[in-house]
Amino acid sequence: MALPETAAMTECLRDLGEAELIRRLSRFAPPGQFDDDTAAVQGGNDTLLINTDLLVEGVHFSDTTTSPQDVGWRAAAANLSDLAASGVTEPVGLTVGLVAPAHTPWRWVEGVYEGLSAALRRHGGFLLGGDCTGGQQRMLAITALGHCGPLRLHRNQAQAGDWLVVSGPHGLSRLGLALLRGEVDLRHHSVDRHLHAAAILQHQRPQPRFAALRDLLACKPLDLPWRAAGTDSSDGLLRSVQDLCHSSGCSAELDPTTLPLAPGWPQELNRESWCLNGGEDFELVLSLPPEWAKPWIAQAPGRQRIGRITTNANAGVHWSDGRGSVSAGGEFQHFQA
Amino acid sequence: MALPETAAMTECLRDLGEAELIRRLSRFAPPGQFDDDTAAVQGGNDTLLINTDLLVEGVHFSDTTTSPQDVGWRAAAANLSDLAASGVTEPVGLTVGLVAPAHTPWRWVEGVYEGLSAALRRHGGFLLGGDCTGGQQRMLAITALGHCGPLRLHRNQAQAGDWLVVSGPHGLSRLGLALLRGEVDLRHHSVDRHLHAAAILQHQRPQPRFAALRDLLACKPLDLPWRAAGTDSSDGLLRSVQDLCHSSGCSAELDPTTLPLAPGWPQELNRESWCLNGGEDFELVLSLPPEWAKPWIAQAPGRQRIGRITTNANAGVHWSDGRGSVSAGGEFQHFQA
Repeated sequence: MALPETAAMTECLRDLGEAELIRRLSRFAPPGQFDDDTAAVQGGNDTLLINTDLLVEGVHFSDTTTSPQDVGWRAAAANLSDLAASGVTEPVGLTVGLVAPAHTPWRWVEGVYEGLSAALRRHGGFLLGGDCTGGQQRMLAITALGHCGPLRLHRNQAQAGDWLVVSGPHGLSRLGLALLRGEVDLRHHSVDRHLHAAAILQHQRPQPRFAALRDLLACKPLDLPWRAAGTDSSDGLLRSVQDLCHSSGCSAELDPTTLPLAPGWPQELNRESWCLNGGEDFELVLSLPPEWAKPWIAQAPGRQRIGRITTNANAGVHWSDGRGSVSAGGEFQHFQA
Repeated sequence: MALPETAAMTECLRDLGEAELIRRLSRFAPPGQFDDDTAAVQGGNDTLLINTDLLVEGVHFSDTTTSPQDVGWRAAAANLSDLAASGVTEPVGLTVGLVAPAHTPWRWVEGVYEGLSAALRRHGGFLLGGDCTGGQQRMLAITALGHCGPLRLHRNQAQAGDWLVVSGPHGLSRLGLALLRGEVDLRHHSVDRHLHAAAILQHQRPQPRFAALRDLLACKPLDLPWRAAGTDSSDGLLRSVQDLCHSSGCSAELDPTTLPLAPGWPQELNRESWCLNGGEDFELVLSLPPEWAKPWIAQAPGRQRIGRITTNANAGVHWSDGRGSVSAGGEFQHFQA
């Protein structure tokens, strides 16, 4: 049954946008099911969390900046990051759906699986199986699964008075991409050797933050309940804070003096925009009481406070110095074609 | 890192074929992991089975023969069928990865989710979440999950002396496709009203065989162990028997007088080829002792014996009347582009 051309013209995915698409699709699932990055599956006396991500050639990866091994690593890491940001302490593994044109070289496929396997060896879990088929465009569909620890992190658990904290610096992945593409004029921006290497590593080999989650579980003050909100910054730091606010019905304030940038970041190099909207940083972004946040920050370098949840009413994300709303200009886009 | 053109020329997926591709990929997973349609995940004291399938526009579905609702239903049914054929008695649900060009009409996406939801309402389980992204071609990646009953069906458990049995007739889905495409000349082939409707229904709304599995569990003779081999006939009946033989290291004999065709199938209408290689029938294909097979067959119409496992050495699939090897001519192809 082909749809009439008029219907195709009036309301296509381009017009709807991602948020509206998710809103419309949510009627097909139990309430709140689409509100987090992962879904819970009850396995006997155990809770498993499950997550699916798609990576499409030309949208999420490109042969010019990404080796097949890195495509595989990033695909696994992106999924495992969603699990870590939802409370998974022990990954079980993942399934792989691979679409590729018939002319795709075997070495590319092999490289992708090498990258997937390397990420699983590093972080735990097995390749559980999957499916392969032909198509016009290379595409990976990864579904990862893991055992949830004592705290399931939801987006909708932020409360006024919470600190907003992150597990590491932001903007590195975007800087790495820019360096790989030759977009940064190194005569005008002094990117030191350490920052250069860190940025490219963060772009090519991002790490899911299971260690940061385990520390979080271990350092909870005994008198506090198991209540914290969390997500990862795969779609950009600002977006993750907006998501926490939107889901929790809260507002947030970011401190412009504590932007979580990597050490040595050049003064004039897209500080704010890449830190807030660079995307694909895969750090934990948490909202929790200061008494819990402080010991967690103290346990490892890179962790820091970036702001706070101000009120239990959603009025968006503002700067703490009165500059007004934090801009979504140049926001990281997932839905494009 | 772009691959050198020479590497791309020498060994591409088209040359390898599906079996060789799976063989090569199996080194990335635990032994035997790729031998079944599903993988096991331990959830506390419970075993969950998981399965991923891809459906690509132009390969697995087309607007000319398949409404968006049917695309969704078939995607869910194909995955649930793999679960049923592996021993899942209770589906948990599925995740959906949807790739679609930006010009895709919302009504198509909505229709797909309506079909997915309808199949889940009919057979159990929930929509667990997923991901949406842009791409050149419409594509669905479905990962389904369910609770395994007391018998996990593997492909590698067939033994000489077993009967080969099926849960229903074969070739119907292929006939339905031919009728929808107008490929059957109804002046030369008498397709009665009932067969016509059944064929189109089987093509558009195939059913995973959870009821047949539940009957199988209920009718096991007490003195037999929990040992049976199984798969579904999604890639064609012959292919499923070949898979059982290959995995079990057995040979099989099919009885040409008991081809599992639907009642009223016209004498001259591709009887053998569509029954054996039509594909997408989604029936259970089981290998088990006759004492267990007989009560199962007796419990519902459509179930029947199609042949037997002859020896514990893999010499392929033969006709029982001495005609020799059962031909794979016109075999159902999954990997194409």
